[in-house]
Amino acid sequence: MIGFEHLKKISHTSPSKIVFLVIDGVGGLPRPETGKTELESARKPNLDQIAKESICGLIDPVSPGITPGSAPGHLAIFGYDPVKYTVGRGIIAALGIDLELNPEDIAARGNFCTIDNRGIITDRRAGRISTEINTELCQLLNEKITVNGAEILVTPVKEHRFVLILRGEGLSPQLTDSDPQQVGLAPKKVDALSPSAQRTAEIANEFVSRVKSLLQDKAPANMVLLRGFSQHPDIPSMPDIYKLKPAAIAIYPMYRGLAKLVGMQLLPAGDNITDQLKSLHQHYSDYDFFFIHFKATDSRGEDGDFEAKVHAIEEVDAALPNLLNLNPDVLIVTGDHSTPATLAMHSWHPVPFMLRSNWCRFDSVTEFSERACLSGGLGRFAAVEIMPLAMANALKLDKFGA
Amino acid sequence: MIGFEHLKKISHTSPSKIVFLVIDGVGGLPRPETGKTELESARKPNLDQIAKESICGLIDPVSPGITPGSAPGHLAIFGYDPVKYTVGRGIIAALGIDLELNPEDIAARGNFCTIDNRGIITDRRAGRISTEINTELCQLLNEKITVNGAEILVTPVKEHRFVLILRGEGLSPQLTDSDPQQVGLAPKKVDALSPSAQRTAEIANEFVSRVKSLLQDKAPANMVLLRGFSQHPDIPSMPDIYKLKPAAIAIYPMYRGLAKLVGMQLLPAGDNITDQLKSLHQHYSDYDFFFIHFKATDSRGEDGDFEAKVHAIEEVDAALPNLLNLNPDVLIVTGDHSTPATLAMHSWHPVPFMLRSNWCRFDSVTEFSERACLSGGLGRFAAVEIMPLAMANALKLDKFGA
Repeated sequence: MIGFEHLKKISHTSPSKIVFLVIDGVGGLPRPETGKTELESARKPNLDQIAKESICGLIDPVSPGITPGSAPGHLAIFGYDPVKYTVGRGIIAALGIDLELNPEDIAARGNFCTIDNRGIITDRRAGRISTEINTELCQLLNEKITVNGAEILVTPVKEHRFVLILRGEGLSPQLTDSDPQQVGLAPKKVDALSPSAQRTAEIANEFVSRVKSLLQDKAPANMVLLRGFSQHPDIPSMPDIYKLKPAAIAIYPMYRGLAKLVGMQLLPAGDNITDQLKSLHQHYSDYDFFFIHFKATDSRGEDGDFEAKVHAIEEVDAALPNLLNLNPDVLIVTGDHSTPATLAMHSWHPVPFMLRSNWCRFDSVTEFSERACLSGGLGRFAAVEIMPLAMANALKLDKFGA
Repeated sequence: MIGFEHLKKISHTSPSKIVFLVIDGVGGLPRPETGKTELESARKPNLDQIAKESICGLIDPVSPGITPGSAPGHLAIFGYDPVKYTVGRGIIAALGIDLELNPEDIAARGNFCTIDNRGIITDRRAGRISTEINTELCQLLNEKITVNGAEILVTPVKEHRFVLILRGEGLSPQLTDSDPQQVGLAPKKVDALSPSAQRTAEIANEFVSRVKSLLQDKAPANMVLLRGFSQHPDIPSMPDIYKLKPAAIAIYPMYRGLAKLVGMQLLPAGDNITDQLKSLHQHYSDYDFFFIHFKATDSRGEDGDFEAKVHAIEEVDAALPNLLNLNPDVLIVTGDHSTPATLAMHSWHPVPFMLRSNWCRFDSVTEFSERACLSGGLGRFAAVEIMPLAMANALKLDKFGA
């Protein structure tokens, strides 16, 4: 891909609209009983009709063999090299619960855990305490713990998980984890990875030491483990690179967070794909790029529930007429990675992709599936190439070079 | 692609011949009435016969979604990374009129324009004055304007366009444009983008100021605008990289200029493809690489004239027997970019490609077209890979590594 510095120069604003439907984890694997993947098993007349009018292919979100997390998966399809632009674990956790972050905040992912009387970890998840107990404990920490040099914000996530924010001036995320990632060891001291992080390391260690005193009688949640200290990454925004006015219609906080990270406006998304498409209609004239995120395909894939994933695909398909009636200049349908139900996890398999526009030079693919897209006109390609293709098909890119 | 430093080491001279036929803008899009592209509509038995004996594919001159100008399009198919090796607008303009350039010359693209009595631009093209008036004005500037520190050469192009050459020692092209690219503003001062360009900026501004005095009564052409200050790029030559003795048979100056830039000898080209192939015969024993450039496909595509582009393809095809009778060891047919008549401009769509040699491992493609080449043995690939493929098929490349 040519660099952002070149894309900035050749991108221009125009009235044409790009709609980007991301069916999370849509790629799959054949079920042994039928030899068909989730997409091949679903009844999906609308997706297949789009395939007939599209140029199709298969995307590699990162590169062959690499299974992407949600952050690299989405950054790649938004045009960001997912190896160059990374989002730390702490920031991901904060985005995942819709925390408002300042650019200088340091975020860490936290676990409540259990230590024995010698200080050795016996359970990294504190017996998976309830979210209610977690919430009470976080409130306690927020009330009782103050540390010189930084404001401390502890926000509960589910069960034993929380997010720690250190807020203050001149803090650095160049820190090691306190979480040794196994039982039988003591929590580690947080170390500075650069001299400028020394003070922040002291603050983190001071926090942990106060927590230890405060929770000593709260077993099984009598200690915390911290990892993934990170700061909001410095990512060039989509409006800056592409001169787009982009908006996101995503229900889950993680995807809203990723969208915000790249400069999208967040629009109301309601509770399901039908609500999302209503919102698309309401705001269609105000933006020129829309990211619509559909989650259930990934969730059911991770559950290992093949049938339920098939139904989720059918649910998207059934909602599509209320997208197709807008007839966007460029319509893209793909996923951020594959989540085969037979594997019950994100996977490295390339993801079916289709792009429909008046200028897409459509191919002979007649179905939206892994096998069919293999013979598509785009072949197999890197997900970071999607955005230049979308922009070109929307006639928003000037010629490169004289 | 492996780098030039490696290619230099493994390239060797041999008697085998490579003929590279570039059908400019050959790729297209289906016409709605028939669903067929220009290539699919043309009667082209010779091109189709070559396809049957070739390995086929589709090339991306720059990268997916990026529409190349003629310079990056050609540099890519000659094996140069078109993002790394760029040719400035001024140099392109100079090449386009066959100007002889010294390596240190600074070239700028110029427009005669109209300013009002407050110095505000009212027409960036001076009412598109005739080429005759342009020629007279350029002669006037050449005669009357001298500037300390550089020789000034003003050469007319068509209508309101000219090329300015600043010739002298220690000049720098690190300059901003004087052309504000819109009416209603005054021409801008030329600024130095680096301290070493300060003197050249002063020379350029002095030139503009002299022009303004000299042309004050010559409305509508009473001022000039300059842009794209640039110098002959420092490009490693094809003879140096590949140990080839390459020659170009191109009718239009721009393509002769690009060929010269990469170290090709220019051969007589006559007026049409028949003349070009006669020239190929005459010089066949003196060189081992021939670049033959055919322009009309691109011109008719840019005109938006689908039928005329089809005829241009048929014109090339009809001339081919006088190329095929030479039976070159490697014959490559492709374009530098697509120019779909339905878009009437250069486009980002990948370009059909075929390579015929005794060693090409030919595929099952039986037709030279966008759709047919999609299933070719080379798949979709970056145009910079063509030269190593050409060299390999000519058995001019040694093994890489022991």
